[in-house]
Amino acid sequence: MAGAIDMSRVSWPDVAEALERGVIAVLAVGAVEQHGAHLPLTTDADLAHGVARRIADGLGALLLPPVAYGDAWNNEAFPGTLSISPETLRAVLEDIGRGLIRMNVEALVLVNGHFGNREPIALAARTLTGQGLPVLHLDYPRLEALAVQICESEPAGSGFYHADEVETAMMLALRPQAVDMSRAAAEYPEFPVTFGHEPMQLREFNTTGVFGDPRPATAGKGEALIAGIVEASLQLVEAFRLRHKGHEVTDGNAQ
Amino acid sequence: MAGAIDMSRVSWPDVAEALERGVIAVLAVGAVEQHGAHLPLTTDADLAHGVARRIADGLGALLLPPVAYGDAWNNEAFPGTLSISPETLRAVLEDIGRGLIRMNVEALVLVNGHFGNREPIALAARTLTGQGLPVLHLDYPRLEALAVQICESEPAGSGFYHADEVETAMMLALRPQAVDMSRAAAEYPEFPVTFGHEPMQLREFNTTGVFGDPRPATAGKGEALIAGIVEASLQLVEAFRLRHKGHEVTDGNAQ
Amino acid sequence: MAGAIDMSRVSWPDVAEALERGVIAVLAVGAVEQHGAHLPLTTDADLAHGVARRIADGLGALLLPPVAYGDAWNNEAFPGTLSISPETLRAVLEDIGRGLIRMNVEALVLVNGHFGNREPIALAARTLTGQGLPVLHLDYPRLEALAVQICESEPAGSGFYHADEVETAMMLALRPQAVDMSRAAAEYPEFPVTFGHEPMQLREFNTTGVFGDPRPATAGKGEALIAGIVEASLQLVEAFRLRHKGHEVTDGNAQ
Amino acid sequence: MAGAIDMSRVSWPDVAEALERGVIAVLAVGAVEQHGAHLPLTTDADLAHGVARRIADGLGALLLPPVAYGDAWNNEAFPGTLSISPETLRAVLEDIGRGLIRMNVEALVLVNGHFGNREPIALAARTLTGQGLPVLHLDYPRLEALAVQICESEPAGSGFYHADEVETAMMLALRPQAVDMSRAAAEYPEFPVTFGHEPMQLREFNTTGVFGDPRPATAGKGEALIAGIVEASLQLVEAFRLRHKGHEVTDGNAQ
Amino acid sequence: MAGAIDMSRVSWPDVAEALERGVIAVLAVGAVEQHGAHLPLTTDADLAHGVARRIADGLGALLLPPVAYGDAWNNEAFPGTLSISPETLRAVLEDIGRGLIRMNVEALVLVNGHFGNREPIALAARTLTGQGLPVLHLDYPRLEALAVQICESEPAGSGFYHADEVETAMMLALRPQAVDMSRAAAEYPEFPVTFGHEPMQLREFNTTGVFGDPRPATAGKGEALIAGIVEASLQLVEAFRLRHKGHEVTDGNAQ
Amino acid sequence: MAGAIDMSRVSWPDVAEALERGVIAVLAVGAVEQHGAHLPLTTDADLAHGVARRIADGLGALLLPPVAYGDAWNNEAFPGTLSISPETLRAVLEDIGRGLIRMNVEALVLVNGHFGNREPIALAARTLTGQGLPVLHLDYPRLEALAVQICESEPAGSGFYHADEVETAMMLALRPQAVDMSRAAAEYPEFPVTFGHEPMQLREFNTTGVFGDPRPATAGKGEALIAGIVEASLQLVEAFRLRHKGHEVTDGNAQ
Repeated sequence: MAGAIDMSRVSWPDVAEALERGVIAVLAVGAVEQHGAHLPLTTDADLAHGVARRIADGLGALLLPPVAYGDAWNNEAFPGTLSISPETLRAVLEDIGRGLIRMNVEALVLVNGHFGNREPIALAARTLTGQGLPVLHLDYPRLEALAVQICESEPAGSGFYHADEVETAMMLALRPQAVDMSRAAAEYPEFPVTFGHEPMQLREFNTTGVFGDPRPATAGKGEALIAGIVEASLQLVEAFRLRHKGHEVTDGNAQ
Repeated sequence: MAGAIDMSRVSWPDVAEALERGVIAVLAVGAVEQHGAHLPLTTDADLAHGVARRIADGLGALLLPPVAYGDAWNNEAFPGTLSISPETLRAVLEDIGRGLIRMNVEALVLVNGHFGNREPIALAARTLTGQGLPVLHLDYPRLEALAVQICESEPAGSGFYHADEVETAMMLALRPQAVDMSRAAAEYPEFPVTFGHEPMQLREFNTTGVFGDPRPATAGKGEALIAGIVEASLQLVEAFRLRHKGHEVTDGNAQ
Repeated sequence: MAGAIDMSRVSWPDVAEALERGVIAVLAVGAVEQHGAHLPLTTDADLAHGVARRIADGLGALLLPPVAYGDAWNNEAFPGTLSISPETLRAVLEDIGRGLIRMNVEALVLVNGHFGNREPIALAARTLTGQGLPVLHLDYPRLEALAVQICESEPAGSGFYHADEVETAMMLALRPQAVDMSRAAAEYPEFPVTFGHEPMQLREFNTTGVFGDPRPATAGKGEALIAGIVEASLQLVEAFRLRHKGHEVTDGNAQ
Repeated sequence: MAGAIDMSRVSWPDVAEALERGVIAVLAVGAVEQHGAHLPLTTDADLAHGVARRIADGLGALLLPPVAYGDAWNNEAFPGTLSISPETLRAVLEDIGRGLIRMNVEALVLVNGHFGNREPIALAARTLTGQGLPVLHLDYPRLEALAVQICESEPAGSGFYHADEVETAMMLALRPQAVDMSRAAAEYPEFPVTFGHEPMQLREFNTTGVFGDPRPATAGKGEALIAGIVEASLQLVEAFRLRHKGHEVTDGNAQ
Repeated sequence: MAGAIDMSRVSWPDVAEALERGVIAVLAVGAVEQHGAHLPLTTDADLAHGVARRIADGLGALLLPPVAYGDAWNNEAFPGTLSISPETLRAVLEDIGRGLIRMNVEALVLVNGHFGNREPIALAARTLTGQGLPVLHLDYPRLEALAVQICESEPAGSGFYHADEVETAMMLALRPQAVDMSRAAAEYPEFPVTFGHEPMQLREFNTTGVFGDPRPATAGKGEALIAGIVEASLQLVEAFRLRHKGHEVTDGNAQ
Repeated sequence: MAGAIDMSRVSWPDVAEALERGVIAVLAVGAVEQHGAHLPLTTDADLAHGVARRIADGLGALLLPPVAYGDAWNNEAFPGTLSISPETLRAVLEDIGRGLIRMNVEALVLVNGHFGNREPIALAARTLTGQGLPVLHLDYPRLEALAVQICESEPAGSGFYHADEVETAMMLALRPQAVDMSRAAAEYPEFPVTFGHEPMQLREFNTTGVFGDPRPATAGKGEALIAGIVEASLQLVEAFRLRHKGHEVTDGNAQ
């Protein structure tokens, strides 16, 4: 297997060659968002692109430059968070997707690193699928099981990983130089009863920006988490490819 | 307690009087979507409005006419489903919300009866909250626990209730004349591995439109489900009111 | 004749069957708008859906759930009016229309119950006709002649029927339980000279929300009005069908 | 009285001076649309601007350059018609209006020469009025009575004047060099039963583009028509000014 | 050669005839913008339409009514400037272009008279070319060389001609009655260092609205400038026609 | 001076601290676009971010994550180019800018690395300046003079630097590992006469994607170019700061 065709390294004739063979594209979607005092603001983009790179490596796929900004509305009360609206994010993804359709890429795998991006990604996928580009969107598959198995600390909420052991460990594996463990501190905030039922800034009930306990994080745990996520992702890509083999994908009527 | 102020029954001087006392508005959001052979296409709107009415009864709130159409894209391959786009749904809710702001309604409670509406509702809530109208959005709170406790059949997927015992029971409680139990049949489809990871018509892997087994449904179970949902909803509204008492709600920085 | 196929009663296999035979859809468009002290805020939606149901009965057509909200901008100064913008209304209608095109419905008949909806409806019709769905939009045809013949009171303005004898009679025929004749009172406001030439809230020159005299209204008159409107509507539908028989309808060049 | 301040003749210091005194703006909205074989495609813009100029003369108002293009969709099947969408027209008017607000113009009078522009104009007026600019929109007031009184021929439809004696006479008064009476011919088409109830190209039932009989038109009749329209317009402007004297105009609640 | 087919003079059968032979359309785009004390606010539209007319004469082309309003944002601090947004301008041009496509016009030549319109014009051209209408957009080609050769005064900035000798001379040639040379005065403002690098009203550093010295302008120089521009324009149109002869123009891949 | 506060390295408390002192933000805007066989597709983003970093270093400014995708429409015929529309790019920049306003950043410096981004950047700057955020947008100031002085080869067109000695040298200085000089080849294409006057894919007249001769490029020349650009940029920022010191920046009337 040839490894990722990284668009930050290769030139257009390299892409042209890959397209002739037939190739999938992999695109990370991140966010610029507070991640406590010990992690950089680009954590979500860094993690998503790191995972995307390994998926692209596994597939010999085109690795696109990441979309660094996402919809991080509920962290905007923390300075440093820079959000784009869900419509803008969707437009970015649909524009990129149309470029991939023009190039005759076979399919697009979106690797999402941020909860707030899920819906714009799903809607962009719907549009692009309707235009003939099959899109698989991944949110760190199997992470919940892996976290239980690999991590020592409890998450602050079910399936809620933010600047905690999970994300810190993954950053230690991918960009250790950007992590300052000396500033890592735990916070287990009490969620308001109406959390999830009304728009709410996380800062209303959280002081540090950390949800959980990042302190037990290690690069080794991060490697294990990433390996598990990538393995689960590649299995999903495999199923996705089988589903689309020989199928025409049509708008609003996939059967 | 006076019961709901139902806008399909009252006139503008009645609304004016309620506004002078201070009043909350309750709005159901449904969908026009296939629900198997035994339930009508308006099931989601019927259920949401039925639940909304009881919540409004409990609150002495303004009960708005329901928004009958929602985003039911993944059921469009079944004839009869009529979907509006998530942007259109969001625009409808934001327009209505702006009317409520002009009237000086104290807050809006959205009662959603359809999964596909969640994100447009959350985004409309974000916009309206930023414009000064606190919005609480409810998706049948406590339903999962209630279903386990009250229903006999298993759901087709975790938290996935569609034309099954849950929805059928609720319809039997609210609009029995629109249910034809003689056509009720069970279907437990096998979900594709990539379900939830790519845009997909449910009809690709489901024949009848039913997910689960509607046959054990009874009006009594429906009543019990609705009562539990309404109770949980009223508790959330209570918490929501406490949170906003004496608070200015501002855009992007709720604290 | 089989009567309407009411989507609030039937299920998707019923719709599928009707589509195989070939079927027209009928959709009411209303408004949530003040109608004096004696009529509910949903009057326009109630009347339009009542008329739409009878037209659908006459045609054996699909009766869609009504679009309850419309553009009632010039009644917004009365509490209780809840308006959506003309763009939003148009988007709702175009989205629904696209769903009908996907289903292969033969044509769409729009039954409008509110003056402010006329232009968004006409524009949506233009769009949908260009996409292949013939659309007929009706505004209570023949009403002016019928009102002269059946009603005792004068309208407040030529062709201007709002919470008056006409609308009250029709509500008495369709939803008598929602009418409170004890609160019915007449008002013949003086229209400003620039009325119709500049944006203006009706409340600027009207106190009760009534335009005309609702007191002579009876259910019998309402029945007669509705029967006349429905007869005129069915004649228009017949002419509309003949016009489109064997014709390709194309964008911008209908000939 | 000094006559119109015609922006195609004056410079910015002239406008600045007028603004210091307080001034109204007058803007014609036309269309580029077929008008039979004897009238040019710019007829509607020519007539509206001619009338606007006389209104501005009467008011000592700023005469803006006309908006030449309008929404002439139903004449698009005739070559030469060039339409802009209603949204585009509305945007043009709202942009211009915002410029007038920035300049502190006291009010805007819109002189419309084309039926299809009515609704975009009304909506732009609504927006601008809400932003603090009173807008009066005129559609040749009193024309129907004047036509009966001055013209010999019957209109092809009630209130329907297109390339007929009315418009031809007005063009003979304003731009005789652009009229070719040798090509003037009458046509009284039969309107389809569903005319006005469905989108329809006029060319479907009209051959020449003329509706009525332009042959009896003379410049004298045109002068009389224009004089009557201008007189009626100035009376409406007077009423409009009185209404707004000392009033704050606010959004959605003009009282 | 037959001269321009001027849509303000001809009727639809004339256009139909030209279309049968095959014809190009020419459209001027101007602005309503301050041009010092000696030139009218419509200068840019007047000049562009004057040049467009001569180009259309040279080509026997359809001369469309000019688009009078453009994006003159940076002159809005001078009263009299009335700007439309770049999106609105682009929409106007795309709507008109779609009309030309429907008519089967062979190509569109846009004659721009105002710097701020360049980008909206280029984007509209991109859209329309992708839809099958070749578009050539001209900004007074060869003007810089002609100005050096014909004019006596220096421009206020390189390639910057505004209310100066160039524009004044062209107006004297095209609309002398709208020029008041007695008010012509020179101004050579000092441009801020960050001019062109940040949004900036020209009035911040300019008092009269003139950039340069209009006083040496004469009609003869204006004629010479226009003749040179028209000659250069016709050469570009010739090259443009050769390029598109026998070519299919497609989106995103023009050859 | 402390150097850039790089958001890919720092956490939210670091940003909060900088904001308290008062800080400017620097944002690079690139493109994903073919750059010949010897440079990667991210060249424009790499160069812009490299320059932005040095400017931020010089200012002690917040260095934002770069916007990697831009409007590269005219290179879309080369595989690998992935463009976003000008509206999407503008939306991204305006969303980010609104985040900076919320944070109380003092001003924004945009460092553009791609010609096609100029207009969307200028329009976003206009919007944001009107909302209270001064924006300076830079396009490698002084590059033309520096290129003449430092480089050996001629550019393919005046001010046209694409995959040539200039860009290659800058990449050799910033990301040498991503340059493959063994594939560097010269191409001096002949530009069509209508280039710049109609939408056109560069590939129509260019084979390799190179415009000019990259072969004489060295890292030393790249360093010199970058140093000169950064010096010129810092001088512009200094002038920009002086201009805004103590000034309120207001919409449409900056004086």
